[in-house]
Amino acid sequence: MKNRATPRTKAIKVEDEDTLVEQFQRIQSETGVAGAPNKSLQVAIGDDAAVWRPRAGHETILTCDWFLEGTHFLANRHPPESIGWKCLVRASSDVTAMGAQPRCFLLSLALPSTRTGAWLKQFLHGLKRASRALQCPLAGGDTTRRNEILVNITVVGECKRGRAILRSGARAGDAIFVTGRLGEAEYGLRLLQRAPKRVNTSDKRLRKHLFPEPRLAAGLWLAKSGLATAMVDLSDGLSSDLPRLCRASAVGARIQRDLLPRVAIAGRDSLKKFDATEFALHGGDDYELLFTAAPKTVARIPNTIGRVLITRIGEITAHKSIVLAGESGVSEKLQNKGWDPFR
Amino acid sequence: MKNRATPRTKAIKVEDEDTLVEQFQRIQSETGVAGAPNKSLQVAIGDDAAVWRPRAGHETILTCDWFLEGTHFLANRHPPESIGWKCLVRASSDVTAMGAQPRCFLLSLALPSTRTGAWLKQFLHGLKRASRALQCPLAGGDTTRRNEILVNITVVGECKRGRAILRSGARAGDAIFVTGRLGEAEYGLRLLQRAPKRVNTSDKRLRKHLFPEPRLAAGLWLAKSGLATAMVDLSDGLSSDLPRLCRASAVGARIQRDLLPRVAIAGRDSLKKFDATEFALHGGDDYELLFTAAPKTVARIPNTIGRVLITRIGEITAHKSIVLAGESGVSEKLQNKGWDPFR
Repeated sequence: MKNRATPRTKAIKVEDEDTLVEQFQRIQSETGVAGAPNKSLQVAIGDDAAVWRPRAGHETILTCDWFLEGTHFLANRHPPESIGWKCLVRASSDVTAMGAQPRCFLLSLALPSTRTGAWLKQFLHGLKRASRALQCPLAGGDTTRRNEILVNITVVGECKRGRAILRSGARAGDAIFVTGRLGEAEYGLRLLQRAPKRVNTSDKRLRKHLFPEPRLAAGLWLAKSGLATAMVDLSDGLSSDLPRLCRASAVGARIQRDLLPRVAIAGRDSLKKFDATEFALHGGDDYELLFTAAPKTVARIPNTIGRVLITRIGEITAHKSIVLAGESGVSEKLQNKGWDPFR
Repeated sequence: MKNRATPRTKAIKVEDEDTLVEQFQRIQSETGVAGAPNKSLQVAIGDDAAVWRPRAGHETILTCDWFLEGTHFLANRHPPESIGWKCLVRASSDVTAMGAQPRCFLLSLALPSTRTGAWLKQFLHGLKRASRALQCPLAGGDTTRRNEILVNITVVGECKRGRAILRSGARAGDAIFVTGRLGEAEYGLRLLQRAPKRVNTSDKRLRKHLFPEPRLAAGLWLAKSGLATAMVDLSDGLSSDLPRLCRASAVGARIQRDLLPRVAIAGRDSLKKFDATEFALHGGDDYELLFTAAPKTVARIPNTIGRVLITRIGEITAHKSIVLAGESGVSEKLQNKGWDPFR
């Protein structure tokens, strides 16, 4: 998705909670109009709660996600439009990883009064773009004042009854695939950490970190085809998320180091000691999908889905360890070095 | 509901995020077993998202609610069990105010590492009690580390298709009713603010503030009977929440001061200059229901629903102002002095 420049219209002013709720209502009507499957939203912002009409024959997918200043983003480094975009894309990534379609979302937002002007306007602009891209309108939310920016997003999705792709379906012998390239978001984060205070949001090296792409098309294709035996999204990093899938399926995995679709490090960063393999194994925030497929159906997995690269990176094993096989044939245990807020 | 003492079993230790998720899984299975309508939860904690099966002929109600240290509670004053109980009851109050039944909830929890032991155990105990009382099991959540305690709760409810009681249905001439007594939570808050560091949680004057009661029976009775034309819950105070209902219905209201079911101030607090009417008009956190009924059906509204007092306090007017009529017959405009985080 292209990163549109933030429009230079009047900043939003918030005098009380009800005024902020009115801004939310405007976003709701704007995102609802944008082709979203909005007939199912009977009542949205402005009442005690939203009323949403589920489709017959479908199950509801529910997920929530923190996005907190200082923990998940830096208010003086990350552009507000990126924060608005990313908070929704990362939360819906969990719905996508079930092979489901995001249908609507709730926004809980806590803000300092210094962030209710231009900052809020740009934040909502990014959020609105993500909402349109995902065809997932705002259904409701809660707001309060706080000395730091706190965001919590709940995404409600749908999939056909019994068709959700769980973490627990992988079997020994299944092939392991990932979408896209791994480590791109970590690369962007490292550059952002070294950058001067204002970053250039159009720098392609930062794009995956600032504006991760939802892998909606791939997730829905896999659900429809029935080819994925298990799926998880890569939010904390391959070395953290793959063990979760393996634990749920009571299996292990062997990853081929040379098969990993690694981030391409630009020539001008060659002196920065960036390690593309380390980024690909342990970098968080990519929001790519990792899925498994039974040996007899592997040939039916395409090389791309909706222009997104699909790469086979290893296989599921009966032995419950996570192993990284090197180019020289030497294997080592894959250390879990992904992101964990409690470590 | 009776406030059970916190059991003195081993405190929960959290080494990493996955360990905390396991604690959530235990809560989920414990609350799911407790008579909750849990067959609809196909997949709960442990996958990317929860899978929930909506009932045919029903609509889904969605709401989320902040509960933040320093903003909504004080970690050194409020017992952790109260925080756990209250975060779920207040969030489900919005579902109740639609005449709907809470069905499951998501918990987003951010904690300092100093709160992952005994504090967390007691918090989860209070949360589990509320979950059982509401027959509303934990379906999923998100955890992270933070220097302050942050809670966000999403409640998913259900009501029969087209039967949600909105804020917008009040008409001039409708009678206005409230459940319970107003200002009881404000009374408890004032006492807590003056109390020594550790409060006595069995003090009846504090009970409504620490352990507010869900008004589920009243909400469901009103939805079933079809007698309420509009409904809202009193979370910020009568003087804040009544105008919201009036605005949504494009009407005004006249409240009779002498009809207000006010908090009873204990004799030993007679020197504290507490004003029961002020508490009833502007006090927040009561989570009582305010509803309206058409003149011809007023006689069918009972005096109690499930032992909870139902009181007629005034009527809806065509003139769009909110008026407080005094005992002497003198009327004044009701000032909005309820809780607003942005004021």
